Amino acid sequence: MSYQDYFRKVTPYVPGEQPKEDDIVKLNTNENPYPPSPKVASALKNVGGAQSRKYPDPTAALLRDALAERYGVRSSQVFVGVGSDDVLGMCFLTFFNSERPILFPEVTYSFYPVWAELFRIPYRTVALREGFRIVPEDYLTENGGVVIANPNAPTGIALSVSEIETIVAGNPDSVVIVDEAYVDFGAVSCQCLLNKYPNLAVVQTFSKSRSMAGMRIGYCIAGEPLIAALQNVKYSYNSYTMNEASILAGKAALEDEAYFVECCKRIAETREWARQEFEKLSFVCTDSKANFLFVSHRSVPAKRIFEALRERKIFVRYFAQPHIDNYLRVTIGTRAEMERLFSALRGILAEA
Amino acid sequence: MSYQDYFRKVTPYVPGEQPKEDDIVKLNTNENPYPPSPKVASALKNVGGAQSRKYPDPTAALLRDALAERYGVRSSQVFVGVGSDDVLGMCFLTFFNSERPILFPEVTYSFYPVWAELFRIPYRTVALREGFRIVPEDYLTENGGVVIANPNAPTGIALSVSEIETIVAGNPDSVVIVDEAYVDFGAVSCQCLLNKYPNLAVVQTFSKSRSMAGMRIGYCIAGEPLIAALQNVKYSYNSYTMNEASILAGKAALEDEAYFVECCKRIAETREWARQEFEKLSFVCTDSKANFLFVSHRSVPAKRIFEALRERKIFVRYFAQPHIDNYLRVTIGTRAEMERLFSALRGILAEA
Repeated sequence: MSYQDYFRKVTPYVPGEQPKEDDIVKLNTNENPYPPSPKVASALKNVGGAQSRKYPDPTAALLRDALAERYGVRSSQVFVGVGSDDVLGMCFLTFFNSERPILFPEVTYSFYPVWAELFRIPYRTVALREGFRIVPEDYLTENGGVVIANPNAPTGIALSVSEIETIVAGNPDSVVIVDEAYVDFGAVSCQCLLNKYPNLAVVQTFSKSRSMAGMRIGYCIAGEPLIAALQNVKYSYNSYTMNEASILAGKAALEDEAYFVECCKRIAETREWARQEFEKLSFVCTDSKANFLFVSHRSVPAKRIFEALRERKIFVRYFAQPHIDNYLRVTIGTRAEMERLFSALRGILAEA
Repeated sequence: MSYQDYFRKVTPYVPGEQPKEDDIVKLNTNENPYPPSPKVASALKNVGGAQSRKYPDPTAALLRDALAERYGVRSSQVFVGVGSDDVLGMCFLTFFNSERPILFPEVTYSFYPVWAELFRIPYRTVALREGFRIVPEDYLTENGGVVIANPNAPTGIALSVSEIETIVAGNPDSVVIVDEAYVDFGAVSCQCLLNKYPNLAVVQTFSKSRSMAGMRIGYCIAGEPLIAALQNVKYSYNSYTMNEASILAGKAALEDEAYFVECCKRIAETREWARQEFEKLSFVCTDSKANFLFVSHRSVPAKRIFEALRERKIFVRYFAQPHIDNYLRVTIGTRAEMERLFSALRGILAEA
């Protein structure tokens, strides 16, 4: 046996393309079209100076305190990480050590099965119902944990708080992770259930609604025993994950609530307008509450539209996967970017 | 069974104290006493602006290319992560999947057993010989991998390249990780062995010799198959670990080689002077090539000195562990900080 036989085998996640050319319309990675709050750049003025020689605060207290204040919880209920992928990965590693399979929807964020395989966690995917619907009762079978993205990816469809409650209340012996990466664009957070259910972990991110994908900040809010378990695993893996820039940037973003609300509102408005435009062009859209639409044309295959858009330097996301291979996931950009998209689509459909 | 029974059990790493008061002398976490190169702050001028809304480059190409150029390797031989703890953790997860135990010294960086337990990797520690010496032949027994810190922590004692070669050459079926966190202060890197041994992985960090603990940057240099395996695991865990600030800061630091060389030289000089001062005060010192000294007083117990220094607001590191519980690990600070340390020590020893 060679040392290479002992390499961990994984199915690598394929991130959306990050084309470097100018003059492209990039609607493929669900980034926010607006810059972060100006308070973020101000807060980073002295980063990289003398302070950088020291380790950052391993407890990231500045950031956790700001999150606790914003969400009305105790700091000991907040865990932060290098983007919500880091936080979710730590949640899988920390909470899912049962022999029973964890459950998540068959169509959802593509990292869930990858983390399960990486950490050798048994899992079972649950089929969606017609119209990509998640039915809470489908998650009440024996399991070692449940993960639900709400709104779901890449459909954008949201469950109500009471639907989430059905899943959480029905699984008192499992941790239920609710991944709310896209919740701020029109869905309702289930944080209001935290006091009632100690098995609930709510994960959110600064990458979407706070326009800070580049800074890598995610967090989990949950009861203290869950957060303490996460902290223990994190400290045993890498005590200092949040660099000084991300701690300061995250805190500054939370101090500009008005900016955050305004950006989310604008994106939701553009989404609703874009939905109508898609429908005018004979697309079917799911009822997305996220910063993207999930669309399928009534006659032209999604792959063909994807490629034609790409030739016109407009990038959207296409998944060559069962159930969703005739859909496109289109990030909501600025109104101007969306106008350019629809102009291109009109040309493509006229030729088709 | 409750969900809490399935939490992963870990022995949390206890980081060195990060006291927040002013007027302390902090010689307990092996930070560099000098600030980063001024080029670092310049490179970060625009961080947190419009660019932050986008995901960072998942390949961190700017930083990997700069490292490749600096060390005369191909970019495909460089893996970067959130501090060398992240890089080492990924190495453990990626390379150590054999049923045979991995080997590392009984006295070494305290994260190695923690990662092994976290990822359920069997391990066996190898006793040090007299004077905390690592003997290469002791690592030629059957194993699933080897990890050597060189210089070792917390002793600071370095192996020569040919001693490292004995370990690497004698384990052709295992990956040998050489953790060179402290190499720049006076030891010799084994990177020169990379062309000859495809099973060698060399890990370094920006936290010590480049004064950038606050930015969290570590890297691994190895043959392409090892790096490809690391990248696959990393992409499957969290594609975007390096935020825009760390990528830019790391590249900028590498562009100021003269500053780096000067800082390392100053620290090595202060270390050699401090060693003499310790010996004058009846301390025994190991032959540390790192940015710390590992010292034991001939008559006064280490713990008592540790506590007396702490009362005087001077923080050094004490490990209540077998073999080393009569030693102190003292980071090399500025000459002025060290003067204050020795002045305090003279007072403490006079009273003892």
